[in-house]
Amino acid sequence: MEIIALKSEMKKVSDGLKIRGKSIGLVPTMGYLHEGHVSLIRQSKKDCDVIILSIFVNPAQFGPNEDFNKYPRDFKRDSGIAAEEGVDYIFAPEAEEMYSKNHLSYVEVEKLNRIMCGKFRPVHFKGVCTVILKLFNIVSPNKAFFGKKDFQQLVIIKKMIKDLDLPVSIIECETVREPDGLALSSRNRYLTKEERENATILYETILFAESRIKSGEKNLSEIKKDCREILKSNKFVSKIDYFDIRDPEDLGEIKKLSRCTGKFLIASAIYIGSTRLIDNKVILL
Amino acid sequence: MEIIALKSEMKKVSDGLKIRGKSIGLVPTMGYLHEGHVSLIRQSKKDCDVIILSIFVNPAQFGPNEDFNKYPRDFKRDSGIAAEEGVDYIFAPEAEEMYSKNHLSYVEVEKLNRIMCGKFRPVHFKGVCTVILKLFNIVSPNKAFFGKKDFQQLVIIKKMIKDLDLPVSIIECETVREPDGLALSSRNRYLTKEERENATILYETILFAESRIKSGEKNLSEIKKDCREILKSNKFVSKIDYFDIRDPEDLGEIKKLSRCTGKFLIASAIYIGSTRLIDNKVILL
Repeated sequence: MEIIALKSEMKKVSDGLKIRGKSIGLVPTMGYLHEGHVSLIRQSKKDCDVIILSIFVNPAQFGPNEDFNKYPRDFKRDSGIAAEEGVDYIFAPEAEEMYSKNHLSYVEVEKLNRIMCGKFRPVHFKGVCTVILKLFNIVSPNKAFFGKKDFQQLVIIKKMIKDLDLPVSIIECETVREPDGLALSSRNRYLTKEERENATILYETILFAESRIKSGEKNLSEIKKDCREILKSNKFVSKIDYFDIRDPEDLGEIKKLSRCTGKFLIASAIYIGSTRLIDNKVILL
Repeated sequence: MEIIALKSEMKKVSDGLKIRGKSIGLVPTMGYLHEGHVSLIRQSKKDCDVIILSIFVNPAQFGPNEDFNKYPRDFKRDSGIAAEEGVDYIFAPEAEEMYSKNHLSYVEVEKLNRIMCGKFRPVHFKGVCTVILKLFNIVSPNKAFFGKKDFQQLVIIKKMIKDLDLPVSIIECETVREPDGLALSSRNRYLTKEERENATILYETILFAESRIKSGEKNLSEIKKDCREILKSNKFVSKIDYFDIRDPEDLGEIKKLSRCTGKFLIASAIYIGSTRLIDNKVILL
């Protein structure tokens, strides 16, 4: 396994791989790898000849009051996991290498970047799309692997690829969960022991909404209201950013069942203490 | 010469060329070709194995009150010129093919897109950058050829390429002029005979500013003021959008000579009657 810090070197490697006809799989991460990332790597190993894992805590996707500085980093541990899983290259540039001085160019997927998480993190998806487009240009992957836990991110990146004619296929991988249901996230490490125990309320509430819909209940605003009440009643839930029921294709809000194509996305973002957690589930009726 | 209307077909062709190791030159145009375009094609023939000329009047770069509908189009004439000049492929998609329904993704080069022409055409460079990025992704050119007449566009596209790590080289070609100095532009055809005769005032005034600077005059705001007066005194000049002296590298305004790196961009946009014309000159001291 080779570790690469320079964009020019990464480009040279991926150009060489292309010429030799190798298919390239990109697993873009912010590091502090967990089993969710590992599942992406394992899927990429099945689908591609050569695996490039990027590790880059992208400053452009954090707002001024967000956790960029305290975001967990452990490169040594990450590279150990990557080597064990058969990653071929880690691309881990410094921020100053990734963004040139006076960087001015950004990609935005309008409208979709202003709803759900985008309503509360207004620069987030602009930063995500920009860095992902840069990574695509540097790494030239045939396939890129993303987890469904960040469902809105997945929809936005797929839309960017379609709108901008990018020659990359996106492979969507299932959310990996702890035995008690909590979705894996590098941010889980921020949680105290008590917060961690109570963090299961997020997925439990999503499953509750699912069961209500599956049992035939038509009044979605009633279900959402009840779910917000459940979340509020947990004293570790300090804020509910949203609890939404949407179309998983275009993220359009589903207010009436007639809007529904048979698929529902139940998605929510809440704070447990000072830690923001997101989760979702797509259900088929 | 082959004419291609579908993105998927164009991608297939350029992928095939890449595999065969051919270098691809892209000459992006809005059609209604003139000698300026021809000079781009001739340069591309010198530099690349295979030449792809795109012809696409891009709706995204026209404002709601601009000349998208009346922009001159003559595909038959254009394809005759292209064939004669040795173009290998014309890529000429319809707008509905180029932009999928509900297109939401745009690229912006911030700040640079709000000055000079961007101040008067606020969506223009967003539309330009988005369509050029799409063309790059569809055509995969090694080199793309742009004229210096659209100097701000050139600076913005180079910045986009640098910021987003796009694997394309930009070749800048000189402005082609009529014998009397008027820069060639598809929009010149809008001019009446009298307007055409008076349109030379634009380049003449730029040359006047150049001569003042070269003669050692330090007071740039005085020079700009005088140039605006000259333009205003011509009764065919119906509006002056700007007459600027800037750094040709980053388009920063040069107010004092100390700001100057030895290079000046003199650039202006005016209306002759109802036709908007732009022109510029880079001078070295």
